[in-house]
Amino acid sequence: MDRKIQIGICGYGNLGRGVESEITKNGDMELAGIFSRRGGGSLISLDYAPAWEDKIDVMILCGGSKSDLPQMGPAFAKIFNTVDSFDTHAKIPEYFAEVDSAAKAAGNISIISIGWDPGLFSLMRLYSGSIIKEGKTYSFWGPGVSQGHGEAIRGVPGVADAIQYTVPAASALERVRNGEKPELSAREKHARECYVVAEDGADTQEIETKIKTMPDYFADYDTAVHFVSQEELKQNHAKLPHGGNVIHTGTTGDGHKQAIEFSLKLDSNPEFTASVLVAFARAAYRLSAAGESGARTIFDVPPKLLSEAPPEELIKGLL
Amino acid sequence: MDRKIQIGICGYGNLGRGVESEITKNGDMELAGIFSRRGGGSLISLDYAPAWEDKIDVMILCGGSKSDLPQMGPAFAKIFNTVDSFDTHAKIPEYFAEVDSAAKAAGNISIISIGWDPGLFSLMRLYSGSIIKEGKTYSFWGPGVSQGHGEAIRGVPGVADAIQYTVPAASALERVRNGEKPELSAREKHARECYVVAEDGADTQEIETKIKTMPDYFADYDTAVHFVSQEELKQNHAKLPHGGNVIHTGTTGDGHKQAIEFSLKLDSNPEFTASVLVAFARAAYRLSAAGESGARTIFDVPPKLLSEAPPEELIKGLL
Repeated sequence: MDRKIQIGICGYGNLGRGVESEITKNGDMELAGIFSRRGGGSLISLDYAPAWEDKIDVMILCGGSKSDLPQMGPAFAKIFNTVDSFDTHAKIPEYFAEVDSAAKAAGNISIISIGWDPGLFSLMRLYSGSIIKEGKTYSFWGPGVSQGHGEAIRGVPGVADAIQYTVPAASALERVRNGEKPELSAREKHARECYVVAEDGADTQEIETKIKTMPDYFADYDTAVHFVSQEELKQNHAKLPHGGNVIHTGTTGDGHKQAIEFSLKLDSNPEFTASVLVAFARAAYRLSAAGESGARTIFDVPPKLLSEAPPEELIKGLL
Repeated sequence: MDRKIQIGICGYGNLGRGVESEITKNGDMELAGIFSRRGGGSLISLDYAPAWEDKIDVMILCGGSKSDLPQMGPAFAKIFNTVDSFDTHAKIPEYFAEVDSAAKAAGNISIISIGWDPGLFSLMRLYSGSIIKEGKTYSFWGPGVSQGHGEAIRGVPGVADAIQYTVPAASALERVRNGEKPELSAREKHARECYVVAEDGADTQEIETKIKTMPDYFADYDTAVHFVSQEELKQNHAKLPHGGNVIHTGTTGDGHKQAIEFSLKLDSNPEFTASVLVAFARAAYRLSAAGESGARTIFDVPPKLLSEAPPEELIKGLL
């Protein structure tokens, strides 16, 4: 039996816990250690991470994109092969460049922006757009909980807690699936449903206005704000389901319609992202073992590197 | 402006014509020549193909899997980089080995079994199964025309012409989408609808029995046989639509359900397959330009090689 791939987890929130659970389902992998800022209990302090350089084949970075990964990504690429889910779309080129130079200098592989969007959705946009050239791609998100939007609401004065559901418009989905290739505004594609717990004595009318007019997050959407108690929020809105659709429609030949659709229905968004990270950790290990180094995205990785099974079995069983 | 990728087409049926049309939609490609068994008109005889070795970057093999490709695949891999849609699932390992040794000896790249199944469906089985390990994958085909089944019917004595539609069972699709992970027999997954033109004076009862009891093709399915006139067949059943779904459902963590679905709705099956072949011809060209040789499947090809756009643009625009 070959030695198992030694996986480290850096960050122990929902995502890190999902990775921990998923590793047990992959027979060729083993958890080497879980690292967190402070350590404590079975968690190892981040300060000790460099000492684990030779004991960990791939470190899965489970921090957030806003404040953790911009530092953590380049810093850890100097020590370990890494995989992360950096998802601030606009900043990916800059993040890629920083991680790439750190990983190259150290001879490590870092696969960045892995998950479902960026991730599998990106992949579907690439495959479908490369295949049906006379076509148009649409990405729909939800129905599901957008943690970024919930965070934005919790930043509004007078808000004690909140959750936000992104809901794709059924009419827009139908028009796209019909191959109409419509031009759709943000408002026509998605609606936003907010469940908000107000602090005692807070002006709910003012909170609602502040949410609905918040630029980028809500101003361009039909937004509904429902005030609920903390108990109700906890009881009915504690889960993190998500999902969505990438739909590419176009034509070939004399106008034959061709439609490609990819969809996800996820009971747990962080656990699904964790599962994608774990599969790409295997790819990172194999790319590194083949002597490659530098940053990679999902676009660079040969699909076979994700599977536990050897190529001959993939050809026999899946092709 | 870089020199365009010179594409050859070998075989000029529905698939070859689809490739010819699709090449015009890819700005970095150019049709170098179309080859057919006999030649004639603008078609070049296959006998002259070897003389085109230096004028063609990738030859797209558009012959059938039953009698054309088993010879053509290894023979052309000795001369050109090739892409083909070999789809006799059971014989793929053997075909791969033959093409691989021919391509390696000549220093060429041959990407085999490209299309949607084998092809994109295989890819989805690989990605989804590698990501959600505690899960099960189902492939459904149709509603659409299965050309192999039509051919089988046309082989029955007394049949002048025929077409066959494969229809997935709505109830099975629903159970799978619900994450029930049912064990489904062939009969529970798909039904078969046959439109048959009988020869004058043929015994239609006997034809129907022969079709319905044909092993592999029909015996294991609920098969309906409709006798129609040649005019009706031509008028109502001349198109080649197809499609299907790959659905993978499973669980993560403490039993959270996760579902991945990929679906195709194709007005023209051969034109869609042609579009996939053309995108992978670009990948074959690039792999060869990078000095690689031998046979490849869709599992080996880094996704970015399919796109006309450079990696930086893919990261900015699609990731």
